[in-house]
Amino acid sequence: MTERHRVMIDGNEAAAYSAHLTNEVIAIYPITPSSNMGEWADQWSSEGRTNIWGTVPSVVEMQSEGGAAGALHGALQAGSLGTTFTASQGLLLMIPNMYKIAGELTSTVIHVAARTVASHALSIFGDHGDVMAVRQTGFALLASGSVQEAMDMALIAQTATLSSRVPFVHFFDGFRTSHEVAKVEQLTAEDARAMIDDGLVQAHRERALTPDRPRIRGTAQNPDYYFQAREASNPWYEACPGHVQAAMDRFASVVGRSYHLFDYVGASDAERVVILMGSGAETAHETVEHLMKAGEKVGVVKVRLYRPFSATHLLAALPSSVRSVAVLDRTKEPGSQGEPLYLDVKAALSDGRPSVRLIGGRYGLSSKDFTPAMVKAVLDELKKEQPQQPFVVGIDDDQTHLSLAYDSAYSTEDEKTVRCLFWGIGSDGTVGANKNSIKIIGDDTDNYAQGYFVYDSKKSGGLTVSHLRFGPKELRSSYLIGQANFIACHVFTYVEKYRLLAQAASGSTFLLNSIYGPEDVWDRLPRELQKEIIDKQIRFYVIDAYKVAHETGMGVRINTVMQTCFFAISGILPQDEAIEAIKRSIKKTYGNKGEAIVKKNYACVDASVANLHEVKIPKEVTSAFAMKPAVPAEAPEFVRTVLGPMLANEGDSLTVKDVALTADGTFPTGTTQWEKRNIAMEIPQWDPETCIQCGKCVLVCPHAVIRSKVYDGTLLEGAPATFKSAEAKWPAFKDKKYTVQYGGPHCQDHLRPEVS
Amino acid sequence: MTERHRVMIDGNEAAAYSAHLTNEVIAIYPITPSSNMGEWADQWSSEGRTNIWGTVPSVVEMQSEGGAAGALHGALQAGSLGTTFTASQGLLLMIPNMYKIAGELTSTVIHVAARTVASHALSIFGDHGDVMAVRQTGFALLASGSVQEAMDMALIAQTATLSSRVPFVHFFDGFRTSHEVAKVEQLTAEDARAMIDDGLVQAHRERALTPDRPRIRGTAQNPDYYFQAREASNPWYEACPGHVQAAMDRFASVVGRSYHLFDYVGASDAERVVILMGSGAETAHETVEHLMKAGEKVGVVKVRLYRPFSATHLLAALPSSVRSVAVLDRTKEPGSQGEPLYLDVKAALSDGRPSVRLIGGRYGLSSKDFTPAMVKAVLDELKKEQPQQPFVVGIDDDQTHLSLAYDSAYSTEDEKTVRCLFWGIGSDGTVGANKNSIKIIGDDTDNYAQGYFVYDSKKSGGLTVSHLRFGPKELRSSYLIGQANFIACHVFTYVEKYRLLAQAASGSTFLLNSIYGPEDVWDRLPRELQKEIIDKQIRFYVIDAYKVAHETGMGVRINTVMQTCFFAISGILPQDEAIEAIKRSIKKTYGNKGEAIVKKNYACVDASVANLHEVKIPKEVTSAFAMKPAVPAEAPEFVRTVLGPMLANEGDSLTVKDVALTADGTFPTGTTQWEKRNIAMEIPQWDPETCIQCGKCVLVCPHAVIRSKVYDGTLLEGAPATFKSAEAKWPAFKDKKYTVQYGGPHCQDHLRPEVS
Repeated sequence: MTERHRVMIDGNEAAAYSAHLTNEVIAIYPITPSSNMGEWADQWSSEGRTNIWGTVPSVVEMQSEGGAAGALHGALQAGSLGTTFTASQGLLLMIPNMYKIAGELTSTVIHVAARTVASHALSIFGDHGDVMAVRQTGFALLASGSVQEAMDMALIAQTATLSSRVPFVHFFDGFRTSHEVAKVEQLTAEDARAMIDDGLVQAHRERALTPDRPRIRGTAQNPDYYFQAREASNPWYEACPGHVQAAMDRFASVVGRSYHLFDYVGASDAERVVILMGSGAETAHETVEHLMKAGEKVGVVKVRLYRPFSATHLLAALPSSVRSVAVLDRTKEPGSQGEPLYLDVKAALSDGRPSVRLIGGRYGLSSKDFTPAMVKAVLDELKKEQPQQPFVVGIDDDQTHLSLAYDSAYSTEDEKTVRCLFWGIGSDGTVGANKNSIKIIGDDTDNYAQGYFVYDSKKSGGLTVSHLRFGPKELRSSYLIGQANFIACHVFTYVEKYRLLAQAASGSTFLLNSIYGPEDVWDRLPRELQKEIIDKQIRFYVIDAYKVAHETGMGVRINTVMQTCFFAISGILPQDEAIEAIKRSIKKTYGNKGEAIVKKNYACVDASVANLHEVKIPKEVTSAFAMKPAVPAEAPEFVRTVLGPMLANEGDSLTVKDVALTADGTFPTGTTQWEKRNIAMEIPQWDPETCIQCGKCVLVCPHAVIRSKVYDGTLLEGAPATFKSAEAKWPAFKDKKYTVQYGGPHCQDHLRPEVS
Repeated sequence: MTERHRVMIDGNEAAAYSAHLTNEVIAIYPITPSSNMGEWADQWSSEGRTNIWGTVPSVVEMQSEGGAAGALHGALQAGSLGTTFTASQGLLLMIPNMYKIAGELTSTVIHVAARTVASHALSIFGDHGDVMAVRQTGFALLASGSVQEAMDMALIAQTATLSSRVPFVHFFDGFRTSHEVAKVEQLTAEDARAMIDDGLVQAHRERALTPDRPRIRGTAQNPDYYFQAREASNPWYEACPGHVQAAMDRFASVVGRSYHLFDYVGASDAERVVILMGSGAETAHETVEHLMKAGEKVGVVKVRLYRPFSATHLLAALPSSVRSVAVLDRTKEPGSQGEPLYLDVKAALSDGRPSVRLIGGRYGLSSKDFTPAMVKAVLDELKKEQPQQPFVVGIDDDQTHLSLAYDSAYSTEDEKTVRCLFWGIGSDGTVGANKNSIKIIGDDTDNYAQGYFVYDSKKSGGLTVSHLRFGPKELRSSYLIGQANFIACHVFTYVEKYRLLAQAASGSTFLLNSIYGPEDVWDRLPRELQKEIIDKQIRFYVIDAYKVAHETGMGVRINTVMQTCFFAISGILPQDEAIEAIKRSIKKTYGNKGEAIVKKNYACVDASVANLHEVKIPKEVTSAFAMKPAVPAEAPEFVRTVLGPMLANEGDSLTVKDVALTADGTFPTGTTQWEKRNIAMEIPQWDPETCIQCGKCVLVCPHAVIRSKVYDGTLLEGAPATFKSAEAKWPAFKDKKYTVQYGGPHCQDHLRPEVS
């Protein structure tokens, strides 16, 4: 038996791994956050990686998800094992084909990185709106809650679809699971071979449409026949849950991890239970274990198989002691009495456990963070005589008053788990470096490790926050870090913009990329930051990463510098080992680009350690200035009250009433003028001496913030001394003056000095 | 106030009428059974018909339903009042846009002739699978159960969408309502003006995206904002049911017909109640009234507004005496515990009326007829201690045993209602003539009238059965005629193929188009038909319609002949008046084709009456032959047991087990060889004398059943005398013989003598 390796990968790669191993035709069309599954499959096939039957899966990119679904349907009807990957609107475009694929009892798995469906606004982030929109198609729905599960369930779904002939949607939470990098045990080809029954593959092939055994499929049926034929498929759906459990059981015997249609975690005498699916179930699991230690009689039911819905199995999973249940749905169907999982559990309990009190609520729409504090709030609500029904959790609904209050200070983080936050700027290499760091930690230590990366939509130049966790304990924390041991800020100007240390735990470490050295930096920090450093007794380090990068020939790429400092300070690995590991990783990444590049990076690593300095913390706040408001006081009210907090990375604090003006997705225009991103390293200057007054700078500026003017010299009377001007060089304008000016919000938006 | 006219129209025309009156942009793409709505709107606009604001709606046909939804979304965002019409897969393609339209709180109504979504097989027929697939989009769903309601609810939906800002799907049952011709009171433009509030129209316009008042809609939102903004729409959905009831109340005060979100009909002390929506609710209404006369404590709740689902209003509609409820869903979602309406009612009752026992079942998939007998079976089931849950009704499920038995002889037809059945052949003019007849009856008498037309999928040459009802009592019978007073068969060969009189009531009338006269016809009927005529004491008439048509210059078009005979025998109108009405109708239809055509038709009418003969019925069955089996005994088992009953128009009798082999939609090939349609009026003959042996007949035969052969004359030794041959005319084949033969199933499939 081949040994299983521990690998640091994300949920997309995990699911694509199992899918590529067990399919022959992979029809793809990219859509966030599922695209990487298709990219991985495409790459592996282009590299000649084979499936368990020794053939290289054919990966075909279609013109849309409609085409991908059609290609999949065709491949399946030709007897191939086929799959596709999608999300959100992409899945919606597959719906017509999905009814057909299911109606024809065709074995296939569609892997979905579940994403919000665009409504009042588009969102690329995650919730279950897309998979819930296909629950009526006849596909089975199987949920994964973690990266490991994404790999495991992908294989279990493939196994069960072959034995049950019911097609599957296997889904996991977009971004939270699809983009979380975590340490997982990689299944082997032998595992897949042990799961997949070749006899069933052969049976699938024999159902193909082929001229060798002519049959018709896809007829039209009339009122005389259709209804009976539709009911004729009942036995397959009745048997499907059994096939899934059988696949899970086989998986347990082959691999060792044990799953059930509904997995209960919690007190055997639990009185209060939450029911949910996806990554939130992992957070609930962690929270329940934490509350149980405090003696609370609580539990969680993780829904794995949502369709076909087996009320029998759900009821069996629920301890007989349970008195009240809250169902959590990560979707919203306006106009419904309750969300889909709630309605299903309602029907099941009202028949099987009518005395259990049931409430239902929404959480985590569009990747709204779902924390242990929220799980606790829901479980606490169940203690009440009159719990809120329906409820929402995770926001402040001060309009329809559905929200549950929660204590954001509540934390279930394990003290042995190291938690690190990195504030970076899109395209500065911070995220890449952190992915690299967490892979080093995962690969080179016995620690469990997890990396999650928050981007805003501005991409290059936008805020990035990397969340790394690692430690000896299994990680179920599918939420952002609330209490960090280590915080790094890779962009100095952030000190005035963001509450960088809001998540800092007492006694934690702060690393700042600063052009100011250990002696000077303190007075360059705003009062709020100074106070937080002092109050939380934070160890504070600075490095002038741009200087180190520049001096070691790395240009503006500070990722290697900051990564080295992280390892140097954090002590995860002995410093020598860490340096060694970083250098190995550099060799691996840049080895094919030549020795010179590798050496330059090595030099950068060594220089980073040399330039890292601890700052001695004064006892008092001394700064002469405060943090800047995100937008100026003269901005319109909407900009101040709504966009301001969003720009300050505090949009989560907006209440429903705050945003009610935009309920239908309508926003005022012209608001970017109030957004001063202030992210430029250097500011352009006009040099009147060398300027040939060609005007091209005005022409090419993409943001149209460079303006030039020819004017009468008398207008310069009383101008400030810093106001620059030159003689106009055109014969037509002799005796006139010429000035180039620049301004506006975008003038400072350039990160890279060479383009600013 | 303009007087309202009574008109004979179908549900598509009824809905399109209200839609055209209250919209400005109509984006269309045709799909059965909704196409006619678009066709009507297109025709009316091309004729310059205006909406209530005096403008002609712009009707634009797009490249698909995806395009139609996009065009609609765009028109709405530009401030226009817009609509579209669709069904089935067409509606599925609109889903992505529907989420956006609803998310943006945009006023619009999409009118849907609800149709089955293709699964194991395609079906053009009706159920609620398509509208249920959009229940999560945020659209409101409003159901109509009759042609009158299709017109009324279309206007009520338009009114409510403007006041509520929630977009609506207004739906009615495909074919059963969309294609049923019924007498309705046509709303006037004044009615529409009284319903639509121009202030709300103005408000809709002011929400348009326009450079004059720049705003942004369609942004991307991130985890910080999206969830709060999604919840911010709650007030609109909470208010929506109130807006719908207000629109219904306004409609009642303007027009007089009163509707509610849930309309209860039945005993005030009802103990057993069915809940359903669409045309089936009308049949349930009729059945409940019938059962109440027998003292049964039963009732029906007609669901009008399905989304937003108002549990409060449902509970209020249900009498406090109710002990058990059955929810009937016209859709199937494999893998669900119960269908959508059932789950909703389950949640509502389990909170509001927990002691009521609830069961749920499926009926009427793909236009499976839903009769009073089935309603009664469901209400009877509710008497049991252990009613079947879940159940299906209308088929015999001998596999998973979900079906309720029902007494197909049970009838609630009113004795004052005349019920007529017409057996015709696709393209013979029977359906057209019957539509014409029912319009004459509806227009020229005070009777309520209804026409419904059953086609098979073979279109030209396939079976058509027209179902006409009329009488003094309001018609709620949204099911096929089970007990007919008058039966006409327009195709003589049907006497051996179909049980033409299976639905004949005792003492009813039978009109047969027969080349055999009143003296000769009896012995040309199979024993089964003779027995049914004698047993049911049927009055039997014959006419040689082809002869009359031929002799009066009508060619093979027998519709006028048969229509005349129907009026002549049935006595709906005094014969003179009827003849007069038919001639008026001829004048209207053919007037623009010249006097000669009109006169020819007049002559045909007169000749028809003269050639109509009553047949004297012997006391005994005398026929020497029986009905032909649909397929020969030597056909394969599947052909005999499954296709045979379908060909005999008895496919409804197939059980689930019978069709279980085709559960995944897979059929054997080559089965049409067993189908002898035997519908040709004349059979082709080869005339060796005149044949020039050009071979073109072989070349052009579309079914390739004409074959020719050159062969040695010695082979003719021992040939039967009827075997025809000729000398081969080619020099290369001198001394050889030549024969043309024809055969195969399609040889007799030609209806029209001139092409056979």
